[in-house]
Amino acid sequence: MKITNLPECESLPVAMKGAKGASRQLPIGKTDGAPNFSIRVFTLEPGGHTPHHIHESEHLNYVMEGSGVAMEGDTPRPISKGDFVLVTPHEKHQYRNTGTEPLVFMCMVPTEFE
Amino acid sequence: MKITNLPECESLPVAMKGAKGASRQLPIGKTDGAPNFSIRVFTLEPGGHTPHHIHESEHLNYVMEGSGVAMEGDTPRPISKGDFVLVTPHEKHQYRNTGTEPLVFMCMVPTEFE
Repeated sequence: MKITNLPECESLPVAMKGAKGASRQLPIGKTDGAPNFSIRVFTLEPGGHTPHHIHESEHLNYVMEGSGVAMEGDTPRPISKGDFVLVTPHEKHQYRNTGTEPLVFMCMVPTEFE
Repeated sequence: MKITNLPECESLPVAMKGAKGASRQLPIGKTDGAPNFSIRVFTLEPGGHTPHHIHESEHLNYVMEGSGVAMEGDTPRPISKGDFVLVTPHEKHQYRNTGTEPLVFMCMVPTEFE
Protein backbone atom coordinates (compact mmCIF):
# COMPACT_ATOMS: atom_id res chain seq x y z
CA MET A 1 0.00 0.00 0.00
CA LYS A 2 1.33 3.38 -0.98
CA ILE A 3 -0.08 6.54 0.63
CA THR A 4 1.09 9.93 -0.59
CA ASN A 5 -0.10 13.48 -1.22
CA LEU A 6 0.74 16.23 -3.68
CA PRO A 7 3.32 18.07 -1.53
CA GLU A 8 5.35 14.82 -1.44
CA CYS A 9 5.31 14.40 -5.23
CA GLU A 10 7.94 15.98 -7.46
CA SER A 11 6.56 18.53 -9.90
CA LEU A 12 8.12 18.74 -13.35
CA PRO A 13 7.34 21.08 -16.23
CA VAL A 14 5.49 19.53 -19.17
CA ALA A 15 7.79 19.86 -22.18
CA MET A 16 5.30 18.33 -24.62
CA LYS A 17 4.72 20.34 -27.81
CA GLY A 18 1.50 22.32 -27.54
CA ALA A 19 1.62 22.61 -23.76
CA LYS A 20 2.06 25.95 -21.99
CA GLY A 21 2.37 26.82 -18.30
CA ALA A 22 1.85 23.18 -17.34
CA SER A 23 3.48 20.97 -14.71
CA ARG A 24 2.95 17.33 -13.84
CA GLN A 25 3.09 15.13 -10.75
CA LEU A 26 2.71 11.35 -10.54
CA PRO A 27 1.22 10.28 -7.18
CA ILE A 28 0.61 6.70 -8.38
CA GLY A 29 2.38 5.06 -11.31
CA LYS A 30 3.83 1.85 -12.63
CA THR A 31 6.99 2.11 -10.47
CA ASP A 32 4.68 1.95 -7.44
CA GLY A 33 3.28 -1.35 -8.68
CA ALA A 34 0.10 0.01 -10.29
CA PRO A 35 -0.67 -2.80 -12.74
CA ASN A 36 -3.12 -1.09 -15.09
CA PHE A 37 -3.72 2.59 -14.47
CA SER A 38 -1.72 5.58 -13.24
CA ILE A 39 -2.75 8.82 -11.55
CA ARG A 40 -1.08 11.93 -12.88
CA VAL A 41 -1.89 15.44 -11.64
CA PHE A 42 -1.49 18.44 -13.92
CA THR A 43 -1.32 22.07 -12.78
CA LEU A 44 -2.01 24.75 -15.38
CA GLU A 45 -1.13 28.34 -14.57
CA PRO A 46 -3.66 31.01 -15.64
CA GLY A 47 -3.48 31.12 -19.45
CA GLY A 48 -1.83 27.71 -19.54
CA HIS A 49 -3.04 24.71 -21.52
CA THR A 50 -2.35 21.11 -22.43
CA PRO A 51 -1.86 20.09 -26.10
CA HIS A 52 -4.96 20.17 -28.30
CA HIS A 53 -4.57 16.65 -29.58
CA ILE A 54 -5.89 13.17 -30.25
CA HIS A 55 -4.56 9.87 -28.95
CA GLU A 56 -5.65 6.29 -28.60
CA SER A 57 -5.90 6.25 -24.80
CA GLU A 58 -8.75 7.62 -22.76
CA HIS A 59 -8.46 10.15 -19.95
CA LEU A 60 -10.34 9.94 -16.68
CA ASN A 61 -10.15 13.40 -15.10
CA TYR A 62 -11.14 15.04 -11.85
CA VAL A 63 -10.82 18.79 -11.29
CA MET A 64 -9.21 19.37 -7.88
CA GLU A 65 -8.81 23.16 -7.96
CA GLY A 66 -9.65 26.09 -10.21
CA SER A 67 -11.69 26.48 -13.35
CA GLY A 68 -11.29 26.55 -17.10
CA VAL A 69 -12.52 24.75 -20.17
CA ALA A 70 -12.19 21.26 -21.58
CA MET A 71 -12.19 21.39 -25.36
CA GLU A 72 -14.52 18.73 -26.77
CA GLY A 73 -13.11 18.78 -30.27
CA ASP A 74 -13.29 22.52 -31.01
CA THR A 75 -16.10 23.26 -28.53
CA PRO A 76 -15.16 24.71 -25.14
CA ARG A 77 -17.01 23.19 -22.20
CA PRO A 78 -16.70 24.89 -18.82
CA ILE A 79 -15.15 22.88 -16.00
CA SER A 80 -14.51 23.71 -12.36
CA LYS A 81 -13.52 22.15 -9.06
CA GLY A 82 -15.47 18.97 -8.40
CA ASP A 83 -16.08 18.00 -12.04
CA PHE A 84 -15.32 14.55 -13.40
CA VAL A 85 -14.49 14.28 -17.11
CA LEU A 86 -14.23 11.28 -19.40
CA VAL A 87 -12.26 11.86 -22.60
CA THR A 88 -12.84 8.83 -24.79
CA PRO A 89 -10.17 7.25 -27.05
CA HIS A 90 -9.41 9.22 -30.25
CA GLU A 91 -11.43 12.23 -29.04
CA LYS A 92 -9.72 15.56 -29.77
CA HIS A 93 -9.35 17.44 -26.49
CA GLN A 94 -7.46 20.08 -24.56
CA TYR A 95 -7.54 21.59 -21.07
CA ARG A 96 -7.25 25.37 -20.80
CA ASN A 97 -7.01 27.47 -17.66
CA THR A 98 -9.25 30.46 -18.37
CA GLY A 99 -9.41 31.48 -14.70
CA THR A 100 -7.17 33.52 -12.43
CA GLU A 101 -6.04 30.70 -10.13
CA PRO A 102 -4.12 27.50 -10.94
CA LEU A 103 -6.21 24.77 -12.55
CA VAL A 104 -5.28 21.44 -10.93
CA PHE A 105 -6.70 18.18 -12.22
CA MET A 106 -6.13 14.47 -11.94
CA CYS A 107 -5.61 12.63 -15.21
CA MET A 108 -5.78 8.85 -15.04
CA VAL A 109 -4.41 6.88 -17.97
CA PRO A 110 -3.35 3.31 -18.71
CA THR A 111 0.18 2.84 -17.28
CA GLU A 112 1.70 2.48 -20.77
CA PHE A 113 0.75 6.10 -21.42
CA GLU A 114 1.70 7.52 -18.02
CA MET B 1 -16.83 13.67 -23.52
CA LYS B 2 -18.81 13.30 -20.35
CA ILE B 3 -18.67 15.97 -17.65
CA THR B 4 -20.44 15.40 -14.36
CA ASN B 5 -20.16 16.08 -10.63
CA LEU B 6 -21.22 14.28 -7.46
CA PRO B 7 -24.59 16.05 -6.95
CA GLU B 8 -25.62 14.74 -10.42
CA CYS B 9 -24.72 11.11 -9.59
CA GLU B 10 -27.16 8.75 -7.94
CA SER B 11 -26.07 7.51 -4.52
CA LEU B 12 -26.90 3.95 -3.55
CA PRO B 13 -26.23 2.08 -0.32
CA VAL B 14 -23.48 -0.54 -0.44
CA ALA B 15 -25.12 -3.87 0.35
CA MET B 16 -21.88 -5.85 0.20
CA LYS B 17 -21.23 -8.12 3.20
CA GLY B 18 -18.80 -6.48 5.62
CA ALA B 19 -19.75 -2.93 4.63
CA LYS B 20 -21.43 -0.55 7.10
CA GLY B 21 -22.70 3.00 6.65
CA ALA B 22 -21.42 3.09 3.10
CA SER B 23 -22.88 4.52 -0.11
CA ARG B 24 -21.57 4.53 -3.67
CA GLN B 25 -21.71 6.80 -6.71
CA LEU B 26 -20.37 6.12 -10.20
CA PRO B 27 -19.34 9.36 -11.96
CA ILE B 28 -17.56 7.47 -14.79
CA GLY B 29 -18.18 3.87 -15.72
CA LYS B 30 -18.43 1.42 -18.57
CA THR B 31 -21.88 2.61 -19.65
CA ASP B 32 -20.28 6.03 -20.29
CA GLY B 33 -17.80 4.41 -22.68
CA ALA B 34 -14.88 4.12 -20.28
CA PRO B 35 -12.89 1.34 -21.95
CA ASN B 36 -10.58 0.27 -19.12
CA PHE B 37 -11.14 1.95 -15.79
CA SER B 38 -14.09 3.32 -13.80
CA ILE B 39 -14.34 6.01 -11.14
CA ARG B 40 -16.48 5.12 -8.15
CA VAL B 41 -16.94 7.40 -5.13
CA PHE B 42 -17.67 5.96 -1.71
CA THR B 43 -19.05 7.89 1.25
CA LEU B 44 -18.60 6.38 4.70
CA GLU B 45 -20.57 7.80 7.58
CA PRO B 46 -18.72 8.20 10.91
CA GLY B 47 -18.13 4.65 12.18
CA GLY B 48 -18.73 3.23 8.71
CA HIS B 49 -16.40 0.96 6.80
CA THR B 50 -15.87 -1.02 3.62
CA PRO B 51 -15.33 -4.81 3.75
CA HIS B 52 -11.98 -5.99 5.13
CA HIS B 53 -11.13 -8.18 2.21
CA ILE B 54 -8.81 -9.34 -0.55
CA HIS B 55 -9.40 -9.35 -4.29
CA GLU B 56 -7.48 -9.65 -7.50
CA SER B 57 -8.01 -6.08 -8.69
CA GLU B 58 -6.09 -3.07 -7.48
CA HIS B 59 -7.63 0.12 -6.08
CA LEU B 60 -6.48 3.61 -6.94
CA ASN B 61 -7.90 5.92 -4.28
CA TYR B 62 -8.08 9.61 -3.60
CA VAL B 63 -9.51 11.02 -0.36
CA MET B 64 -11.86 13.88 -1.23
CA GLU B 65 -13.25 14.69 2.24
CA GLY B 66 -12.82 13.59 5.83
CA SER B 67 -10.37 11.34 7.60
CA GLY B 68 -10.01 7.76 8.78
CA VAL B 69 -7.75 4.80 8.31
CA ALA B 70 -6.82 2.50 5.48
CA MET B 71 -6.09 -0.97 6.80
CA GLU B 72 -2.90 -2.34 5.24
CA GLY B 73 -3.52 -5.97 6.11
CA ASP B 74 -4.23 -5.60 9.84
CA THR B 75 -2.29 -2.37 10.31
CA PRO B 76 -4.26 0.90 10.38
CA ARG B 77 -2.68 3.72 8.42
CA PRO B 78 -4.13 7.23 8.86
CA ILE B 79 -5.59 8.90 5.80
CA SER B 80 -7.15 12.30 5.27
CA LYS B 81 -8.34 14.69 2.59
CA GLY B 82 -5.76 15.00 -0.18
CA ASP B 83 -4.19 11.56 0.20
CA PHE B 84 -3.69 9.19 -2.71
CA VAL B 85 -3.65 5.47 -1.96
CA LEU B 86 -2.62 2.49 -4.06
CA VAL B 87 -4.00 -0.86 -2.91
CA THR B 88 -2.18 -3.52 -4.89
CA PRO B 89 -3.81 -6.73 -6.19
CA HIS B 90 -4.41 -9.40 -3.50
CA GLU B 91 -3.58 -6.95 -0.69
CA LYS B 92 -5.95 -7.24 2.29
CA HIS B 93 -7.47 -3.81 2.92
CA GLN B 94 -10.35 -1.85 4.37
CA TYR B 95 -11.40 1.78 4.68
CA ARG B 96 -12.75 2.93 8.05
CA ASN B 97 -14.18 6.31 8.94
CA THR B 98 -12.74 7.05 12.38
CA GLY B 99 -13.62 10.76 12.19
CA THR B 100 -16.72 12.78 12.93
CA GLU B 101 -17.49 13.88 9.34
CA PRO B 102 -18.27 11.77 6.26
CA LEU B 103 -15.23 10.14 4.65
CA VAL B 104 -15.53 10.52 0.88
CA PHE B 105 -13.04 8.87 -1.45
CA MET B 106 -12.62 8.03 -5.09
CA CYS B 107 -11.95 4.38 -5.86
CA MET B 108 -10.79 3.61 -9.38
CA VAL B 109 -10.95 0.01 -10.55
CA PRO B 110 -10.84 -1.88 -13.85
CA THR B 111 -14.31 -1.65 -15.45
CA GLU B 112 -14.95 -5.38 -14.99
CA PHE B 113 -14.92 -4.80 -11.22
CA GLU B 114 -16.88 -1.54 -11.17
